[in-house]
Amino acid sequence: MDLYIGNKNYSTWSMRAWLVLQHFQIPFTEHLVPYDDFLPEQNFKQTLAKITPVGKVPVLKHQDLIVWDSLAICEYLAELFPERHLWTQDIKTRAYARAVCAEMHSGFMALRSLCPMNITQDFTQLGQQLFHENADLQADIKRIEEIWSKREYPKGFLCGNEFTIVDAFYAPVVMRFKSYGLPVSESSQNYMQTILNVGAVKAWIEAAQQES
Amino acid sequence: MDLYIGNKNYSTWSMRAWLVLQHFQIPFTEHLVPYDDFLPEQNFKQTLAKITPVGKVPVLKHQDLIVWDSLAICEYLAELFPERHLWTQDIKTRAYARAVCAEMHSGFMALRSLCPMNITQDFTQLGQQLFHENADLQADIKRIEEIWSKREYPKGFLCGNEFTIVDAFYAPVVMRFKSYGLPVSESSQNYMQTILNVGAVKAWIEAAQQES
Repeated sequence: MDLYIGNKNYSTWSMRAWLVLQHFQIPFTEHLVPYDDFLPEQNFKQTLAKITPVGKVPVLKHQDLIVWDSLAICEYLAELFPERHLWTQDIKTRAYARAVCAEMHSGFMALRSLCPMNITQDFTQLGQQLFHENADLQADIKRIEEIWSKREYPKGFLCGNEFTIVDAFYAPVVMRFKSYGLPVSESSQNYMQTILNVGAVKAWIEAAQQES
Repeated sequence: MDLYIGNKNYSTWSMRAWLVLQHFQIPFTEHLVPYDDFLPEQNFKQTLAKITPVGKVPVLKHQDLIVWDSLAICEYLAELFPERHLWTQDIKTRAYARAVCAEMHSGFMALRSLCPMNITQDFTQLGQQLFHENADLQADIKRIEEIWSKREYPKGFLCGNEFTIVDAFYAPVVMRFKSYGLPVSESSQNYMQTILNVGAVKAWIEAAQQES
């Protein structure tokens, strides 16, 4: 199985798929396609044009199958390895997890556009300014804090005591909240620490630091 | 099971979830919450505030469970009724279907913003103009035509000879292409006709016409 990703310092969608493969110990070969200016004649688009119809990362290649979206990749892996419980086991909690993943997949546009992930940088001052000036960013953060506050265990994951796909979906948000020093509740701080303690997350951060 | 939707003439995401329930003969009660100006004190937001954390349609209510995203709703229904094959049965084709649904879920922004669904109107002239003036719209249409051209059977659905979730995801695009008279290949015209012949799609269109 092959996973094509962008730079670990910047690529949030790559991080989601990678964390799931890594955390659940699914053997895979990583192909890092470094970011450039995304012009058609440059390496990034040229490389991806050979493997995916949409020219974006992440892309999973498994035998003759190409899957070019992070959520679809996670669903495929969950089906391939049912015994590893990539989603939580209860059907209703799983429906909740998918709704929360879907919100991330299509939403939080203010956070995503104003605070791009940059793991190795400290943007605390900029983050304070953006937060005070931007109501949409405040609304995004409020909703994310609401999701994080619904956890059953104070130091647990979003759907119980185990890391599942939904946590992979919110891990890059933890990176952003940290870099931009966004103001969050104690409950959210606990969740951020829970995520930062996950082995796969630590490994991703270390690799991002090596890149810089 | 209860499904909260917006106006059938306008609400593409409502249409997707509704088509899946209707086509697969899953018993449900429909609650149509009419569109207004979406101000917090008006009926639409007031009604949805009581049932969903995000204030958008569609929302599925099943016993004590609330699912507030169309893709998460479809996944939940597929799990509840595995014998009805809401997704295609082959795991790899299913991964493909999910990638294609995910593209719709988070993309095609030019088409979605420039050509909002309005089933009962004929915007052919406007559609021609938008198409000629807008490269992003052209790119969205090109990619959608590429997806539709990958069908195995000339008059079939996106993943074989049966209507599945992925077709529900592209049915509102068929409505848009039709209303705006967007220029498409013969293969795409065949797909549009295939979708327009689906009983659930016909029922949705008829109800949209009654609304106006």
